[in-house]
Amino acid sequence: MSVRHFVGDAAVASTPDHDRGLAYGDGLFETMRAHGGAAHWWPAHWRRLERGAQALGLDLPEQARVRREAEALLDGASAVLKLIVTRGTGGRGYAPPQPATPHWILSLHDVPAAAPPEGLNLRWCDTRLALQPALAGIKHCNRLEQVLARGEWRDPDVHEGLMRSAEGDVVSATAANLFVLHEDRWTTPAVDRCGIAGVCREWAIDALQARQARLAVTEVEAADAVFLCNAARGILPVARLGARVWRPHPQVAQLRRRLAAEHPAFATEVA
Amino acid sequence: MSVRHFVGDAAVASTPDHDRGLAYGDGLFETMRAHGGAAHWWPAHWRRLERGAQALGLDLPEQARVRREAEALLDGASAVLKLIVTRGTGGRGYAPPQPATPHWILSLHDVPAAAPPEGLNLRWCDTRLALQPALAGIKHCNRLEQVLARGEWRDPDVHEGLMRSAEGDVVSATAANLFVLHEDRWTTPAVDRCGIAGVCREWAIDALQARQARLAVTEVEAADAVFLCNAARGILPVARLGARVWRPHPQVAQLRRRLAAEHPAFATEVA
Repeated sequence: MSVRHFVGDAAVASTPDHDRGLAYGDGLFETMRAHGGAAHWWPAHWRRLERGAQALGLDLPEQARVRREAEALLDGASAVLKLIVTRGTGGRGYAPPQPATPHWILSLHDVPAAAPPEGLNLRWCDTRLALQPALAGIKHCNRLEQVLARGEWRDPDVHEGLMRSAEGDVVSATAANLFVLHEDRWTTPAVDRCGIAGVCREWAIDALQARQARLAVTEVEAADAVFLCNAARGILPVARLGARVWRPHPQVAQLRRRLAAEHPAFATEVA
Repeated sequence: MSVRHFVGDAAVASTPDHDRGLAYGDGLFETMRAHGGAAHWWPAHWRRLERGAQALGLDLPEQARVRREAEALLDGASAVLKLIVTRGTGGRGYAPPQPATPHWILSLHDVPAAAPPEGLNLRWCDTRLALQPALAGIKHCNRLEQVLARGEWRDPDVHEGLMRSAEGDVVSATAANLFVLHEDRWTTPAVDRCGIAGVCREWAIDALQARQARLAVTEVEAADAVFLCNAARGILPVARLGARVWRPHPQVAQLRRRLAAEHPAFATEVA
């Protein structure tokens, strides 16, 4: 896996000592699907990064420079491109240094396997998402809740786990957003109290004119169709959730074709 | 500032790429006060680290080795000694790698200034602590709430800020625990839903036979005396909280003398 580190404008060999990303998770990240050397949804990823930087009061590096370095690293390849931006180095103590020079890391990862054609097999996670409106929606580096939830199972036949908030409403999978269909109306959980506003979620909300709302467990289990999505893997049909089984749904298949037509990385995955 | 990195048993030059501490805040830390080359409260710090490792399902390095390296790094000095232990490296994705080799970092920092003799000046923070029992009490590396809270003010005359939980009860300062006195009875907020079970807090609970409970804002403001504490700075008398002013209290002065008698690093700070 290829990795490049930068501090402000300067390339560096590795993570500097006293990086606040390591000390406090004081940073943001984006995980993008690149195809033929280009990250097709770059603008949407950068917009979310800017919203996160605003929420954390964190300085971002210059977008054009980051994109240039990302494309140089990709060098024509298809891969998952990960960008981490931390607040940079600081002494001991929570006070954000002023000014701070961001540390940013680009890394390439293998393209994930395509969704199983029969659909994903899900479980419920016990770990809850705490309600924290100040951090909701953004893709920050405080991810212990997701780590705990994903650590709840090791059975490779279970592909993902659904997480509920502390109040019991369904929010997302550990690493993907959730959409459910009821009588031709798509709903995805609101992410104003916890959860991440995924880039593929944003695309799907537009494509489906989906509403954002609190979603009860029973509303997921009673749905006519369910899919997960994220920017690395696209649209992931769901076949099972515990004892509940769904048959392939034409609206999900149609959405996958639509994504394949709009994002070249996903074109090869649709039969 | 001196820093040493290790992965499992091996010394390494810097943070390895794909460290989960940097990616997800997937780690723990301890901040200890060392005096004359020794970290007096080492056993209590290590016990808390073990509780955190249990909660996160994270492997710790061998204690004797870490302590030996810490004492070698200290080399007789008085300093703040910070230990970070991350889950180690892993690919993209939240699933904790099995097995994982922990990355641990020792660093030395300047001894902080003694508490101002007139007492600390506090404010209320707007940033709330989310309720997350699965992570409460332990000193993990997901600290964005504290970073946001500490970023709320830059006035150097305000020394610390008090944080409330999402439900409004008072939990702690951004980097210290809180004790309040009412009619000869000391209380410190419970840390079963959020907050950190500080090592100095543990000492003070024993010393004062303090109770642990939810604490309302009005109970803090109506207290006869208030102090903060942490393992780096010891007992910190509080003189002001917004408009509320406290005079020095003999029980706080007595507790500082008692700490000075038990922990050599704090002996010099008591007149």
